[in-house]
Amino acid sequence: MIYLKTMVTALLLGSVPIQTALAAECLPPDPTLMRGFPPPVEKRVTPENLMQHPQNRWAFQHMREVVPTREIAHSEAPVSVITENPLDLDSLSFELPEGRKLSLTQWMQESCTDSFLVMHRGKLVYERYFSGMTAATPHQMFSATKSWVATVALQLIEEGRLDPGRTMVSYIPELKGSAFAQATVQQVLNMTTSIRFSEEYTDPKADIWQYGAVFAIGGTPGADYKGPRRVEEYLPTLNKGEAPHGKGFHYVTPNTDALAWINSRITGKSTSELFSERFLQPLGAEHGAYFWTAGGVEMAGGGLNISARDAARFGQMILNKGRFNGRQILAPAVAARILAPGNPDTFSVFYDDPWYQNVGYAYHDMWWTFDNAHKAVSAIGVHGQFIYLDPIANMVVIKQSSHPDAEGASNENDGPAIWHQIARHLMQHDH
Amino acid sequence: MIYLKTMVTALLLGSVPIQTALAAECLPPDPTLMRGFPPPVEKRVTPENLMQHPQNRWAFQHMREVVPTREIAHSEAPVSVITENPLDLDSLSFELPEGRKLSLTQWMQESCTDSFLVMHRGKLVYERYFSGMTAATPHQMFSATKSWVATVALQLIEEGRLDPGRTMVSYIPELKGSAFAQATVQQVLNMTTSIRFSEEYTDPKADIWQYGAVFAIGGTPGADYKGPRRVEEYLPTLNKGEAPHGKGFHYVTPNTDALAWINSRITGKSTSELFSERFLQPLGAEHGAYFWTAGGVEMAGGGLNISARDAARFGQMILNKGRFNGRQILAPAVAARILAPGNPDTFSVFYDDPWYQNVGYAYHDMWWTFDNAHKAVSAIGVHGQFIYLDPIANMVVIKQSSHPDAEGASNENDGPAIWHQIARHLMQHDH
Repeated sequence: MIYLKTMVTALLLGSVPIQTALAAECLPPDPTLMRGFPPPVEKRVTPENLMQHPQNRWAFQHMREVVPTREIAHSEAPVSVITENPLDLDSLSFELPEGRKLSLTQWMQESCTDSFLVMHRGKLVYERYFSGMTAATPHQMFSATKSWVATVALQLIEEGRLDPGRTMVSYIPELKGSAFAQATVQQVLNMTTSIRFSEEYTDPKADIWQYGAVFAIGGTPGADYKGPRRVEEYLPTLNKGEAPHGKGFHYVTPNTDALAWINSRITGKSTSELFSERFLQPLGAEHGAYFWTAGGVEMAGGGLNISARDAARFGQMILNKGRFNGRQILAPAVAARILAPGNPDTFSVFYDDPWYQNVGYAYHDMWWTFDNAHKAVSAIGVHGQFIYLDPIANMVVIKQSSHPDAEGASNENDGPAIWHQIARHLMQHDH
Repeated sequence: MIYLKTMVTALLLGSVPIQTALAAECLPPDPTLMRGFPPPVEKRVTPENLMQHPQNRWAFQHMREVVPTREIAHSEAPVSVITENPLDLDSLSFELPEGRKLSLTQWMQESCTDSFLVMHRGKLVYERYFSGMTAATPHQMFSATKSWVATVALQLIEEGRLDPGRTMVSYIPELKGSAFAQATVQQVLNMTTSIRFSEEYTDPKADIWQYGAVFAIGGTPGADYKGPRRVEEYLPTLNKGEAPHGKGFHYVTPNTDALAWINSRITGKSTSELFSERFLQPLGAEHGAYFWTAGGVEMAGGGLNISARDAARFGQMILNKGRFNGRQILAPAVAARILAPGNPDTFSVFYDDPWYQNVGYAYHDMWWTFDNAHKAVSAIGVHGQFIYLDPIANMVVIKQSSHPDAEGASNENDGPAIWHQIARHLMQHDH
């Protein structure tokens, strides 16, 4: 657990000190951050501090004000209507895995929630915003982005344009000699590639720093940084690990950037263009969405910013067998594949933390799966981002957060348990 | 002329070599700029090269992909309808001041036009986009931004919240001891403040470099840069010149940033918020607009990015005595003041270039005025941005460009002459 936690923290936190797995205090948003003309120096959110608490409570709703971003066009199509059927779940009470009891409202506060939406049977039954967020706010999604990128790839596979059994180097010759070269597309999708991925904080040449440097996470590196500064320089430098490809799950963010490279090479389109034409336009998205970019390349591993409702449209479309807004957006086979259970054996080869077993996590096709009674799957991003799909209850949960910890019990552990309880509640109570 | 030209170039070009006043060749947009995954290094547009040709042909339509930006909210209000009455002006032929004859289409191409719109009697009669621009594209406006900032101030004056006769330091104590301190708000509006403003390129401590450093024009300065990095540090460092305040016009961009400071101090709102509530929301703006920002502060001197149609709504509202979209948005007195003629005597104290006399330029309240038969006024930005208002013809011209020269004959000289001929054509031909 700590292995994964540290690595993901490293990848997406850059220069921030490692957080513990214990939930830190969720500070209320500071209303004076980036306010006033000019904002006082100590109240400024910058590329250097945007991942830190409390700056992240502002930053995750305002990424475009701190870093370069690329719009994901959506306005050509009319907005699709989401039918509302509001239910009062505020005081719904849960027993957490640790034994403590609290209401949904209490838990949302404790877990630094910025948005929380529940769709049930295609209708929006619950919608709450906090910390100044509104229905129109694009929120930073971090690694939940990966599931969208992989969904593009799955659809390209279904269309016969991408062969999951072929090697990465057969699509991207630039990857020759790297860890990715002889890995198959499917191994990249499942993150069972064998990559020697260093996370040693004491080593300034560790790979984690280099991924951060490429995407200017934590700011543009100074002149003394001698490593790769561009994604196409960086990906080919990753070296293969000892294990054979396919042996076990190993969460390495650059897998997604390598996959996005293939998506774009095949289609001739940027990740933003693909998200626009494959998802936002046909879904009838309602709000502006955008990608954190660097040097004209989207951070495919974690740069999506989107409103809660548009994320819900995406999730509902998958539950609807790829259909939404009167259109078949994804092949039904792609939706079925996303909703397929993960393989706990492959998952646990390199991860033996009991926490995973407790929640029943596994991973395939860049979607997390849960070994619960409803066989839920989820897109997950650090600091508490979720697109949680429960196919039995026909329920979508969107949670966007700005937790001090990259990962923490309140989100990754309690979250799925609580949503499963919400699903059971919704199924048991007519509405 | 060269004095002003050099200074404005300096202010808004940063590290780019000084351009000549002669029009450089208008290169066609390079369709491979920032295309491909990843874009080849030599095809990347960066903060360092975005002001240069040909990168600027892409950059001025994609500023948010290169620098941090702040949205100007507009979506709360319904979009106002612009009635169209299309006229074919493509082959309308003009005699340029230099004697050459060419069609509107030819001239738009020669002057690196990205958008060109004409409103006549409140209807959109002509609308053309080039270089990949669409009706929805927010385009960088440079110093045309100043006229919007000043219009906010004029409205605050009309509301009795800002006294144009008071000194700047009486509103912003932080300006004590600076060139701005004892200047009046009206002198700042008219840019008749006396500021020792150095433009010596050979002097690394020249003020121009420091303005660029504050807003990261041309990229964030390196660690060796010891000057001010924040606008509130920078503005108080400007020193008073020899002349008394009010003696003559002297174009110094930071006047606008000082004025924006007052607007925000009085209202407690950022420049983006003021543009949203004062202009874009009541105008029923159609498209996304945003500000180039640095450290949480908008570049009031030149950072607005807006669609051509929304700029046209703003211009038409002023011609309509402050009324648009069924609402009185500005006091009629503010609109009348903007449309008042400039004072050529004050204007020419420090500027004796015959070019100005030929076109009849003057300046007040951060709007340019023309001594032509129609007493037109215009917001103007380097590289060819115009919101040109002809009150006699009831005509608005929007031109957004990405010319290689910061200023050049094809835009600043020929443009007003051509629009005056369009106005006369429209008035002479029933439609």
